[in-house]
Amino acid sequence: MESRFTEKDFLACCGSTQFAKQMSQIEHYLLNNLEQAVEAARNIWFNKVDVNGWLEAFAAHPQIGQSSSSSSSANIKSAQWSKGEQSTALATSTKSSLQELFEWNARYRQKFGFVFLICASGRTTPEILTELEKRYKNRPIVEFEKAAQEQIKITEIRLVKLFATKATSPSMSEN
Amino acid sequence: MESRFTEKDFLACCGSTQFAKQMSQIEHYLLNNLEQAVEAARNIWFNKVDVNGWLEAFAAHPQIGQSSSSSSSANIKSAQWSKGEQSTALATSTKSSLQELFEWNARYRQKFGFVFLICASGRTTPEILTELEKRYKNRPIVEFEKAAQEQIKITEIRLVKLFATKATSPSMSEN
Repeated sequence: MESRFTEKDFLACCGSTQFAKQMSQIEHYLLNNLEQAVEAARNIWFNKVDVNGWLEAFAAHPQIGQSSSSSSSANIKSAQWSKGEQSTALATSTKSSLQELFEWNARYRQKFGFVFLICASGRTTPEILTELEKRYKNRPIVEFEKAAQEQIKITEIRLVKLFATKATSPSMSEN
Repeated sequence: MESRFTEKDFLACCGSTQFAKQMSQIEHYLLNNLEQAVEAARNIWFNKVDVNGWLEAFAAHPQIGQSSSSSSSANIKSAQWSKGEQSTALATSTKSSLQELFEWNARYRQKFGFVFLICASGRTTPEILTELEKRYKNRPIVEFEKAAQEQIKITEIRLVKLFATKATSPSMSEN
């Protein structure tokens, strides 16, 4: 039986090509069950994807408070989801808090070498700012692992969305 | 007072440009004392150099059991030191153990995305092989931090050598 999910679908959930490739290679029956798919995703992300793959996944995210400018189809889906995930933050932001977020993002990137990553769903801009300032104090390796934990939370939420859109209509799956 | 050490000297101790730059910028009086210099190096390596810098430093090492082919002067010094550090390993290797080391190195690199790093000073080839096989089982993030700990051990040994060669003759320092 053909899987109803493509490598590109998984790449929209997590921008690591190692992750997407390995997700698309797991036994198809596991992908009939959301819970099993999430477990497989966690296993691949923490045990199989190397640190370069983590950095690749982080680089696929827009800076928080901004939208992606990418044009590949996996990235279009990822950008739409990202916008949805940041809707609470955007609704609770002001011009000055967005400016502050922008400045802290730059400082964070300067220290750690990758974008500040947070599972933003349901979080307000002040909450995100507080978290950013707190995490900025971390050692680089500690923050690297923290960002990976946030990435898998985002991935899990996106897998739920992916399953919801493709649950009942395998014939409608994209190519 | 001019420091007797250049950025290039520190780059031969640790191949991260962030590390070398920050070492060359610390107060010169700290560099008059080996113990203080080592403490500064540890602080910079674990708290200031980001994960890209760690990967850059790892990439500056030849695969264990092989020699570097690089031609920059920092790398020539690094390659000479590397050869000395591996002298016990080389003296205790056989054709078949070198072949095994080569194969395990390739497997390690395939899994982790960077070269197997070990402070080889005084270690035999069988000891290194045992350690490689053990560390191969680690999760990528665990192994990443382990490699960074080995890197700082190598750096410390090289700082000692650097201080020994430049301790008494500042006028003889290289450019």
